Amino acid sequence: MPYNSFTSIIELLGTIAFTISGVFAAMQKRLDLFGVLIMGFVTAIGGGTIRDVLIGVTPVSWMLDLTTLGVIITTGIITVLFKKTVKNLKVTLFFFDALGLGLFTVIGMQKGVAKNLHPVICVALGTITGCFGGVIRDILLNQIPMIFRRKEIYATACIIGGVIYWLSLVWLDERLAQTIAVIVICTIRIVAVKLNWKLPAV
Amino acid sequence: MPYNSFTSIIELLGTIAFTISGVFAAMQKRLDLFGVLIMGFVTAIGGGTIRDVLIGVTPVSWMLDLTTLGVIITTGIITVLFKKTVKNLKVTLFFFDALGLGLFTVIGMQKGVAKNLHPVICVALGTITGCFGGVIRDILLNQIPMIFRRKEIYATACIIGGVIYWLSLVWLDERLAQTIAVIVICTIRIVAVKLNWKLPAV
Amino acid sequence: MPYNSFTSIIELLGTIAFTISGVFAAMQKRLDLFGVLIMGFVTAIGGGTIRDVLIGVTPVSWMLDLTTLGVIITTGIITVLFKKTVKNLKVTLFFFDALGLGLFTVIGMQKGVAKNLHPVICVALGTITGCFGGVIRDILLNQIPMIFRRKEIYATACIIGGVIYWLSLVWLDERLAQTIAVIVICTIRIVAVKLNWKLPAV
Repeated sequence: MPYNSFTSIIELLGTIAFTISGVFAAMQKRLDLFGVLIMGFVTAIGGGTIRDVLIGVTPVSWMLDLTTLGVIITTGIITVLFKKTVKNLKVTLFFFDALGLGLFTVIGMQKGVAKNLHPVICVALGTITGCFGGVIRDILLNQIPMIFRRKEIYATACIIGGVIYWLSLVWLDERLAQTIAVIVICTIRIVAVKLNWKLPAV
Repeated sequence: MPYNSFTSIIELLGTIAFTISGVFAAMQKRLDLFGVLIMGFVTAIGGGTIRDVLIGVTPVSWMLDLTTLGVIITTGIITVLFKKTVKNLKVTLFFFDALGLGLFTVIGMQKGVAKNLHPVICVALGTITGCFGGVIRDILLNQIPMIFRRKEIYATACIIGGVIYWLSLVWLDERLAQTIAVIVICTIRIVAVKLNWKLPAV
Repeated sequence: MPYNSFTSIIELLGTIAFTISGVFAAMQKRLDLFGVLIMGFVTAIGGGTIRDVLIGVTPVSWMLDLTTLGVIITTGIITVLFKKTVKNLKVTLFFFDALGLGLFTVIGMQKGVAKNLHPVICVALGTITGCFGGVIRDILLNQIPMIFRRKEIYATACIIGGVIYWLSLVWLDERLAQTIAVIVICTIRIVAVKLNWKLPAV
């Protein structure tokens, strides 16, 4: 399988996982059907949209290709219709979500590189891409964003993965560095949840 | 009356209605005078501003012409001074609001067309233009956006109107299609409120 | 000392004060370490970022220069480590904050001038630059933005200072007008707090 299709598939899985996370959060707050679909949508595209706006890549990515919108709406409707079945896929969804986090972060970094931004800023962009969909979801649902209060290793995984990506580039080619970064982020996230790692409260 | 002046007048009425809706929401939460005016402002320009930022039309529209700002500030001050009188205009305001919703949606779609975006994305842009001023208003007032929770036909009217606009274009010229779309959105919204139509909860 | 270094130093002090205000607000809500640093970050760069996005100056300013990011992270960590000591600097911080408000407002106006925007819009841009970092901070912390509800003279100081800047330009050169605007904003803000001036509720 060529590298690009591989990336696209993982990105698709990430989009699906992020959409479902938004849909479930919205159903918990008893929104109506439209609200639930919109919440799935902003969770999936929010991070990338903020990134694109901040670096001036407009129209933002989801406007240039109907695939993303189609995947999100389909996922949203299926999730609403089969909510019990989807809920049972909890572990599967968690893996998609971790994979999506890793890949969204790497995609975000690449967009920064394409704009000739400093590596540190690229890591910030990657983290924004991976995390800020969930931030917008939580703001719209009127709660303090989860990544700031759950003391979980989430954004931290993106930052570590981003740094490792840049360090790898010294010895390895770009594709390999990207693959390593995705694996690192994904692994940190999964291990952190399994072992219940937390950031210190201050 | 030429078509453009007609559009401008309806847009003005929509801006006035949206400003008043923001001002009233802010007064209910007992904000100070500055907060009330700002809330009127963001409700009126929020949707168009998000649209412009997403498609990269900057500086955003309200910065290029003082009319909008002037209308909003004047409306805001008059609403604060004569709040009881304005409140009695409830039905009139509701009609302005429905008209504004229809026209803002069509304006948003046109901006998408000008950027050569796909019809489906244009409908999304129209809906954002019509609805997201209210979303920002509600976020700033620390409540879950009304369009997600009131189960009213609001964004749904924009989406239906947007689709009808594109279908009309097959047989009709642009101006006629626009007029039809505005009438459809406006009518759906009014009838939905009169008959208490709701979206299903999920 | 040349004028530019003077500006940079005041901007730095403003950034520090705004970061600390975000960090303290976040610690009150018991966020984790990452949440606290992000909150310091968005409070310091939020106003300028919204301004840049609205006028289409992208990538936004903090991405083009690592100084801002470095200052914010350093300030954030020091504040977390020495929170008691920093809290005792309350009066000093308040002065930094007032200075930062004045200077951020003037910087915002200059960016509007560079885009040939109308003076009234430039004043709005200045006010956004000075105030909207705090607005984003409050939205993320799930409370109605302080500047809308505390009835304090905050945004009002920016608006008055902005108007005086434009009036001064008739007789004075730009640098002098800027200095006067910064002093006016800073003084109004300090006097307003000392004398407990408030905007009327409506």
